[in-house]
Amino acid sequence: MKVIETIAEMKQIRRGLPEPVGFVPTMGYLHEGHLTLVRRAKAESKSVVVSIYVNPTQFGPREDLAHYPRDIRRDLAMLEKVNTDIVFFPPDKEMYPPRFSTWVDVERVTEPLEGAIRPGHFRGVATVCAKLFNIVQPAKAYFGQKDAQQVVVIKRTVADLNMNLEIVVVPTVREPDGLAMSSRNTYLNPEERKAAVVLYQALGLAQQLWSKGEKNAERLRQAMTELIHKQPLAEKIDYVSVADAETLVELDEVKPPALVSLAVKIGKPRLIDNIVLE
Amino acid sequence: MKVIETIAEMKQIRRGLPEPVGFVPTMGYLHEGHLTLVRRAKAESKSVVVSIYVNPTQFGPREDLAHYPRDIRRDLAMLEKVNTDIVFFPPDKEMYPPRFSTWVDVERVTEPLEGAIRPGHFRGVATVCAKLFNIVQPAKAYFGQKDAQQVVVIKRTVADLNMNLEIVVVPTVREPDGLAMSSRNTYLNPEERKAAVVLYQALGLAQQLWSKGEKNAERLRQAMTELIHKQPLAEKIDYVSVADAETLVELDEVKPPALVSLAVKIGKPRLIDNIVLE
Repeated sequence: MKVIETIAEMKQIRRGLPEPVGFVPTMGYLHEGHLTLVRRAKAESKSVVVSIYVNPTQFGPREDLAHYPRDIRRDLAMLEKVNTDIVFFPPDKEMYPPRFSTWVDVERVTEPLEGAIRPGHFRGVATVCAKLFNIVQPAKAYFGQKDAQQVVVIKRTVADLNMNLEIVVVPTVREPDGLAMSSRNTYLNPEERKAAVVLYQALGLAQQLWSKGEKNAERLRQAMTELIHKQPLAEKIDYVSVADAETLVELDEVKPPALVSLAVKIGKPRLIDNIVLE
Repeated sequence: MKVIETIAEMKQIRRGLPEPVGFVPTMGYLHEGHLTLVRRAKAESKSVVVSIYVNPTQFGPREDLAHYPRDIRRDLAMLEKVNTDIVFFPPDKEMYPPRFSTWVDVERVTEPLEGAIRPGHFRGVATVCAKLFNIVQPAKAYFGQKDAQQVVVIKRTVADLNMNLEIVVVPTVREPDGLAMSSRNTYLNPEERKAAVVLYQALGLAQQLWSKGEKNAERLRQAMTELIHKQPLAEKIDYVSVADAETLVELDEVKPPALVSLAVKIGKPRLIDNIVLE
């Protein structure tokens, strides 16, 4: 496993990599969810590149960039174990040099949900992904379904800008009790950690109601909201959404594929999760 | 010479093209300036792709999209003569399908000069170039120095998004009297055509003063402005600029490389031209 810390070196080594190249972009502080992406990439590619880059442009001014958890040595050990070929670990000054001024801006699908709570977030995400895709030039890039809107935005970017790669979406990896894996789960104290399962329970309820024939999207939202409100540590619901899975427009009547997603503050951290009704 | 009218077919044929591929993006209605780009591409590449696409997103609502001159048969005959390998001629519905919503937005260098007069113009230019570069995947793309700010914006885009191609800038091709070649020159009536040489004369004056030691940028602007005002058919000066050639920030003291550029309405059409003081 090679660790590469400059864009020029990454581009140069890229030329000699056996094709096809699979790519897993991450912000580090890896967990089983990331490793699942790497294993999938490994199974479908001759070479696997994993990037570790805490992208500053996707954090808002009041967000947790400075405190985002980092542990590069642990990350590298984990990536070595799953036979990663290349780790790309660029510094900020290479990714965003002084005169940097180009942004990939996606309209509409970036506006609701996370985009409404975190203005500018998806501009940062789409921009860094475009950059990383151009540097790594993968045949396929792997993303977790956990960040559902991110997946929609990146698929939109790739399609609209005619990029030459396929976006592979991998099911969310969960803890035994159903909590979606996330680097931000480390912020939860033990009590909050137990309470956090309420996101999964709310999604399960929506799935159950839908399976039983409920097609009224508002009733699904209400049932989920009520369930979450019963959990005292769920301090604030940012959104509970039942939306078209491609456009992210809120639905009146549930028509599959529909994305059921939610964002809830459990203590300090803000957790997100989702399922797709198909 | 093959003419290709779908993105899928262009991407497929691209895979079999002898490398390196040179690319000349155009809006058609070709003139000697375009052909010079193609010849240069031909000299430096194994395969040359020319795109003909009047990109609607770079025209403002009050601009001349509907009346932009077009003559595809004449264009194809000209391209055939200079041994173009592939002409890419995509329809709007492929380039901008209904859910299209991703834009490449370049800050700062897009704000003055043409950007100030034509809001959104460079967003359209940067976006369509990103798309075309991804579709054609050239080693080099060729642009004329005539559209100086466009060149700055595209170089910025390529650098910031880490795209894998080189932008080659080719000197402006001029008519015998010095008028820069442009598809829009066809809008000039014979009298205006004669008057249009005033742009070149103004640039020549700036060059002369600079060569004689004038380093005060404002004096260069004033001298050019005065000369243009002596031409009665020069109805309106949009700008006369002496700016840093990379940042496009107006200069007080001329420091090479400096971009001297101007935009002047001669009758109906609005003409632009520039030189670089080095």
